[in-house]
Amino acid sequence: MNHFYFQKLTDLLKQSDLDAILICPSEELSFLTGFSPVVCERFQGLFVKRDGSAFYFCNLLTGDEAVHALPESIPVFTWFDNETMTEVLLPVLEKMQLSGKSIGVNSSTKAFHLLDIAEKSGCNFQNAVSLLEEVRICKTAEELECLRKAASIADEAYCAVLPRIHAGLLEGDVRDMLVSEMERRGGTDAGALVASGPNAGYPHYCQYSRQLSTGDCLIMDFGCLFHGLHSDMTRTVFIGSVSDRQRQLYQLLLKAQLAAESSAVEGAFIPDIDQQARTILSEENVDQYFTTRIGHGIGYMTHEAPYIAKWNARKLEKGMCFSIEPGIYVPGEFGMRIEDIVAINLEGQREVLNQAPKELFITAE
Amino acid sequence: MNHFYFQKLTDLLKQSDLDAILICPSEELSFLTGFSPVVCERFQGLFVKRDGSAFYFCNLLTGDEAVHALPESIPVFTWFDNETMTEVLLPVLEKMQLSGKSIGVNSSTKAFHLLDIAEKSGCNFQNAVSLLEEVRICKTAEELECLRKAASIADEAYCAVLPRIHAGLLEGDVRDMLVSEMERRGGTDAGALVASGPNAGYPHYCQYSRQLSTGDCLIMDFGCLFHGLHSDMTRTVFIGSVSDRQRQLYQLLLKAQLAAESSAVEGAFIPDIDQQARTILSEENVDQYFTTRIGHGIGYMTHEAPYIAKWNARKLEKGMCFSIEPGIYVPGEFGMRIEDIVAINLEGQREVLNQAPKELFITAE
Repeated sequence: MNHFYFQKLTDLLKQSDLDAILICPSEELSFLTGFSPVVCERFQGLFVKRDGSAFYFCNLLTGDEAVHALPESIPVFTWFDNETMTEVLLPVLEKMQLSGKSIGVNSSTKAFHLLDIAEKSGCNFQNAVSLLEEVRICKTAEELECLRKAASIADEAYCAVLPRIHAGLLEGDVRDMLVSEMERRGGTDAGALVASGPNAGYPHYCQYSRQLSTGDCLIMDFGCLFHGLHSDMTRTVFIGSVSDRQRQLYQLLLKAQLAAESSAVEGAFIPDIDQQARTILSEENVDQYFTTRIGHGIGYMTHEAPYIAKWNARKLEKGMCFSIEPGIYVPGEFGMRIEDIVAINLEGQREVLNQAPKELFITAE
Repeated sequence: MNHFYFQKLTDLLKQSDLDAILICPSEELSFLTGFSPVVCERFQGLFVKRDGSAFYFCNLLTGDEAVHALPESIPVFTWFDNETMTEVLLPVLEKMQLSGKSIGVNSSTKAFHLLDIAEKSGCNFQNAVSLLEEVRICKTAEELECLRKAASIADEAYCAVLPRIHAGLLEGDVRDMLVSEMERRGGTDAGALVASGPNAGYPHYCQYSRQLSTGDCLIMDFGCLFHGLHSDMTRTVFIGSVSDRQRQLYQLLLKAQLAAESSAVEGAFIPDIDQQARTILSEENVDQYFTTRIGHGIGYMTHEAPYIAKWNARKLEKGMCFSIEPGIYVPGEFGMRIEDIVAINLEGQREVLNQAPKELFITAE
């Protein structure tokens, strides 16, 4: 149980109009409680009330694990498969004085569970994802240390893999090398998106089946967990050769990435960071191909607050940690992205957590 | 695009009081459309209307992939990260005449997305998981063939691993052997829960860190995908030796499993199948430790309709395919489970898809 965060959560609940929050299994549950049960279609979750009391509700088959994993102060209520979940939950909600009340939900709560419970209980459910993000939006010194380590594991894996990339490999081969180098260095849950040639034009492509060929752009987007905290970085390299146009666009993208990264200082207005990169890309009229936000917060989840996007009208604060990742995506033709994680440390300094080189790189053929 | 299932879905929609159904990325989306996009916190999903028309809504970064993956008859609408999702979705819902209408949701729709959309659109959302299950509750001849193959891959993997199990191995070693033997035989997304000794008392234990020791019960619950269809089987063996009490309980459990399995014929009333096993386990007063339903349907998802549980007052029909898996779980002491997949084939015959031996087995020490 993380008492520091539990206290922050109940403080925020008291400032909200919610009577409780429901936290189903997720990184949000595990960073608060350390509990990561196996998930299936059966409903389970932690209810935290604004008075700081809490209880867990799950199927009988998870009951003993929940009792062991959670502190004694959190009672565990269970239902049995041969019963109907809502029929068992209703008297529990009543006992806990939550019938008909306002309950926030976390990011992993399933809509069909919410609908079943709302119909029977009369509870008024609300989106509480940003409240849970607010709890952890400014990282502690210990968390920053883990984020640095997670970033450096990814950096080192990249440097180990880079000389081994050449035409003829499959995208999946590159993924496997990156994952194995991150795991060797103690990174867990390591993963990598690898997109080459025309596939790189799709920011979330992940089929891994294409063979690298001379002249390709190759996007590698990867990261790992270190003590529960994520890294996430992207590098783009060229296989064997680079055309003049791709060289020009890469240099422009790097300029945009560096400018946005430099502007991400304590007190910076978030929409300005995004705009920096778009203005530079517009020099060559390719801002239209920068089809995503420029970044996302990172921590216990790969994507969390603060989102670095035009609509997010707030300022950067000490402890915030986020990606800066402009890209140029021409679907079915080519794509490039450069991504670092940046932190505003507790002294208020900007720290770029990724140190792997990002100058234009051409691999062996 | 699977036109057979798409037609079945719209037929069922017309019989319901829903105006449309929302299907977010999931096995439910992929078996209907073949589309399995990368998922993140950004909302995306297929809206199917009761008139058989459909459209997809997603972030710009998934737009091109959706256009390629879906038929031309399904328009794709996108929003850009620097916009607010609901502000872009609302005019789309209006154009598609769905504002304020009743929309069913699938199993993967996130509650927080639903709440954001419901608040702005006035749509009335309903749980449509069972409607989507009904579409595929009776398998086709081709699907039964894949389910047979998936089951036989798991059977063969088990037989290959069994002689290699002995005291001293970690639970994770057994998992790795099972997974690798399933993958070698063409099973994908292969996975295994392995629980030994006191851990076997928790039906969903999956830490993989305990060392097998003489006298342990060892539960192995595993399966794979073959052409998108799942297998799922469980065997329990004893490490090196077995106590008289465990032998007695295992024989009783096997008797219960065989009796329930035999009773699962076309036309059988589902609650009776569950009761069969409980009655036999009550001979030794251990029905209280059978803390789960006796089975679940299987197909494009590991767990889907028909659920084999007391509350499911329907009869078995041709094409239904499901697990029969009674267990005895004494938390922190020991546990045992035996699971086969059973199908009612299209000729109405009961077919046990798993053929791996389940007689009491004692491994080498």
